[in-house]
Amino acid sequence: MRAVDVIMKKRSGGELDREELATIINGYVAGSVPDYQVSAWAMAVFFKGMTPRETAILTELMLDSGKRMSLAGLRGEAAPFVDKHSTGGVGDKVSLILAPLAASLGVRVPMMSGRALGHTGGTLDKLESIPGYRTGLSEADFRKGIEEEGYAMTGQTAEIVPADKKLYALRDVTATVESIPLITASILSKKVAEGAEALVFDVKSGPGAFMKTVADAEALAQSLVRTGSAMGKRIIGVITDMSEPLGRTVGNFFEVEESLDCLEGRGPEDLMEVTLRLTAWMLVAGGKAATVEEGISRCRESLASGKPRELFLANARRQGGDVERTLALRGNYRSKHRFELKAPASGYIAAIDAWKIGLASVNLGVGRNTAADSVSPDVGLIFAKKSGDRVEKGETVATVYGKDQASLEAARPLVEAALTIGAASPAKKSLIIKEIMS
Amino acid sequence: MRAVDVIMKKRSGGELDREELATIINGYVAGSVPDYQVSAWAMAVFFKGMTPRETAILTELMLDSGKRMSLAGLRGEAAPFVDKHSTGGVGDKVSLILAPLAASLGVRVPMMSGRALGHTGGTLDKLESIPGYRTGLSEADFRKGIEEEGYAMTGQTAEIVPADKKLYALRDVTATVESIPLITASILSKKVAEGAEALVFDVKSGPGAFMKTVADAEALAQSLVRTGSAMGKRIIGVITDMSEPLGRTVGNFFEVEESLDCLEGRGPEDLMEVTLRLTAWMLVAGGKAATVEEGISRCRESLASGKPRELFLANARRQGGDVERTLALRGNYRSKHRFELKAPASGYIAAIDAWKIGLASVNLGVGRNTAADSVSPDVGLIFAKKSGDRVEKGETVATVYGKDQASLEAARPLVEAALTIGAASPAKKSLIIKEIMS
Repeated sequence: MRAVDVIMKKRSGGELDREELATIINGYVAGSVPDYQVSAWAMAVFFKGMTPRETAILTELMLDSGKRMSLAGLRGEAAPFVDKHSTGGVGDKVSLILAPLAASLGVRVPMMSGRALGHTGGTLDKLESIPGYRTGLSEADFRKGIEEEGYAMTGQTAEIVPADKKLYALRDVTATVESIPLITASILSKKVAEGAEALVFDVKSGPGAFMKTVADAEALAQSLVRTGSAMGKRIIGVITDMSEPLGRTVGNFFEVEESLDCLEGRGPEDLMEVTLRLTAWMLVAGGKAATVEEGISRCRESLASGKPRELFLANARRQGGDVERTLALRGNYRSKHRFELKAPASGYIAAIDAWKIGLASVNLGVGRNTAADSVSPDVGLIFAKKSGDRVEKGETVATVYGKDQASLEAARPLVEAALTIGAASPAKKSLIIKEIMS
Repeated sequence: MRAVDVIMKKRSGGELDREELATIINGYVAGSVPDYQVSAWAMAVFFKGMTPRETAILTELMLDSGKRMSLAGLRGEAAPFVDKHSTGGVGDKVSLILAPLAASLGVRVPMMSGRALGHTGGTLDKLESIPGYRTGLSEADFRKGIEEEGYAMTGQTAEIVPADKKLYALRDVTATVESIPLITASILSKKVAEGAEALVFDVKSGPGAFMKTVADAEALAQSLVRTGSAMGKRIIGVITDMSEPLGRTVGNFFEVEESLDCLEGRGPEDLMEVTLRLTAWMLVAGGKAATVEEGISRCRESLASGKPRELFLANARRQGGDVERTLALRGNYRSKHRFELKAPASGYIAAIDAWKIGLASVNLGVGRNTAADSVSPDVGLIFAKKSGDRVEKGETVATVYGKDQASLEAARPLVEAALTIGAASPAKKSLIIKEIMS
C-alpha cells in the first residue's frame, strides 16, 4: 500500500482502516515512510478528523510501536493501577499532591510525566528542583517505588511509544498539534503503556490551556473517554478552568513548596478544589470510593492524618532527593534577580491571565521554548493576591524571580499585562466545569 | 520568521504576505525549510486555498527561484511571443500542429513542454519519437530556432523555476497536487520564465483530464487568467472537453504522424476544432487577428499554403530530427505486438473513455508511471472509429500496439472497458466548452 494513497483517502474525508493507518504509523517508525508524507497526512487529519474507530486503531498502533511497562506480580495489596493526566496548565502542580494522596488511600499510581514545553510547566522539571531527585527510573526502580510508597514518578523512556515521540516532534513543527484524534492517541497510548487500568483526565480549558474553549476541551474529553473505553479502560474526563494560574506559585521549586503546603493542610482553595476532585475520581475509578463526594471526604481525612506527606517525602528520598535540604530550602530558594508586581490601582483583582503568566514564566527560566533549553529551580512567580482579592494601589500582587536581569525585563511587560483590576469583587466560580464518563 | 508560524496562519485560513510566502518557498529552495514543513503547508493550502494576491506572489517567488529565458534582441520581425499550455489530456498533440501554424502567421512561439506522466502524454516524448530529435536545447539553440522558424520546442532546464521542480515532486507524493493556486503558480511561473508575453491555456475538463468537472476547470482557468493578468500578461483560458482521446491516435510516433496529417489538411474534425481555436486565440492575443473567427480563417489559409508543414519539418531538422526517415516511417513504425479492439455489438459508438485509454496507454509503453520509466515510440492506439460512428458487431474500432505481449494483456481490459456502444447516434457537441479572458 502506498502512503500517498492513504493521504489522499484521508484528504477526501475517508475512514482509514487498520492496514492504511499501519502504513503510515509503522512505516514512519520503520523509516520507510518519510516525514514529509506523515506531516501531509497529519494536516489532512487536522482538517478531516477521525472516527472513534480510527482513533482507537491509531492509539493501538502507537502503543504497539514500543513496549509496555510491566506492572504484573508487584508485591503487596492487589490494588488497582490508576493514573491522572493533565493536558497542561500554568501553576499546575496537582500531580505532586495527588499521587501520594491517592496512594495513601489504596490505589497504586504508576505516573509517567513530561517536561515543561511552551507556556506550560512540567511535572518532571518540578520534581527535579528537589536536590538530587531523579526521574529517569529503571523499570525495576519504578516497580519498587509503587510497591513501597504506592506510587512512583518517572519520565517516558525511549522504549515507550516511540511512534509518539517521533510523531509529536513532527507535529510540533508542522502546525498539526491541535487535532483532537492525534492528541487523543498521543495521550492515551502513553498512559496505557505505563500500565494504568483506569485514568482520570484533567482537560484544562481557558486562556492558559491548549484548549481555549470549553467546547474544544469537551470534544477532547469525549474523545479520550470514548477511545479509552473502547480499549477496555475506565476513563473519567474532568474539564477544569485554566483562566488563572492554579494556586499561588508558578516555578519549579516554588511549586514543590506549595505542594508541601497542600500536603500539610495549608493549600490554597483553588488548587485544593481541583486536586481533591481529581483524586476523588481516581478513588472512584479504582473502586476505593462509591461516589466522588465520598472520595473527597476520604482525601480530607487522609490529609489530616499526615500520611500523604510522609509518602511524598519517602518517594523523594527513594528517587534520590535530599529531603532534609529540601525542607531547609523552603522559603529561601529564591533567585536574587527579582521585582515586585504592584497593583496599578486600588480595587479587586479581576483576572490574572494564565497565558501571559505562562509565557512570562518561560522568559524567567521556569520552562523552555525548545526541548534543548535548560530550566532553573529558583525562579517564577509567587502571588500574594489572586482573583477576588482586595488590593490597594501600590500593594504587592506578586514577586517575580528571574534567572538574570534580562529575563526579568523580558517577562515584565507580560506580567504587567496579565493583571486586571476591577471596581467590584468578581463572583466566585468553581474551577470544575464539567465531568464526562462513558 | 518561523515556517511553522506560516503553516499555522495558512491552516487558520489567513492570507499570507510576501515575507511569509518567501519563508516557505525561498527557504525550501535554499534547504533551510525542510520538506516536511512544506508538505504540511501545501496540505493546508489544499484545504484553505489562496487569494488572487497570494497566488500572484507565490508565482513570482517561484519564478524568481531561477533564471528566465532571455528572448531579447532576437533577429527578425519584432513579433510578439505567444505560447499555449495544455493542462494535459489523452491524444493531445495540439502543440505539434499549433506551434508551426501560429509561427506561420507571425507570432513567435517559445515553447517549453513536459513529458508524459500518469495517464497523459507529453509533447517532449512525442517529438523525441522523431528519430534524432533533441528537446534539450541550449538557450542559443532555442533562440536560433525562434529566429529561423518562428518557434522552438524544448524541455524545462534545471535553471528554470527550480522551486517548481522541487515542490511538484513533493506534492506528487503527498496528495497535494490538486490545489488550484498551487497548480496556477506551477504552470504560470514556467510559462512566464520561458519569455511568453501572452498565453493561451487549454484547460481540459472531463474523465481524461486532471479537472474532472467543468466547474473545476473553470476555477483553474479563472485563476490562471486572473493571476497571469495581475503579472502583466495577456491571458486567455479555453476550457475544452477531454471525455474522449483527441484525434484518432494515442502514441508518440502515431501522434507525430497525425500531426503531419493535420498540417497536410487531413486532420480529424475534433483535433482540428481544438487546434484551430487555440491557435486563433494565440493570434488574437498576439495582435495578429482582431477576432477568433478571423484567426481561424487565417489558420485555414495558412494550412492550405503548406507553410506550417514546411516549418514543422524545418524545426525537426534543426533540432536534429531525420526528416527523410520520419516520412519513410509514416504508417510503418508499429510494434509487432498488437490486437484489434472489435465492436462487441452493432450500433453507434457512444463513448471512448479517455481516462481508461490514458491508463491503458501507460501499460502499452506510451507514457510512464514514474519519471524514471522509459517510453516507446511505436506503441499506442489507432482508432478506426470515434464517437458517433456507426459500427457493426466484430468490426475493428481500434488497433492497439504494445511494447510486448504482457503490456497488451495489461491494457486489454482497460481498452475494452473504455468502449460504449449505443443504439442511436449521439448528438454532436463542440469540444470548446467555455472561453475566459480578463
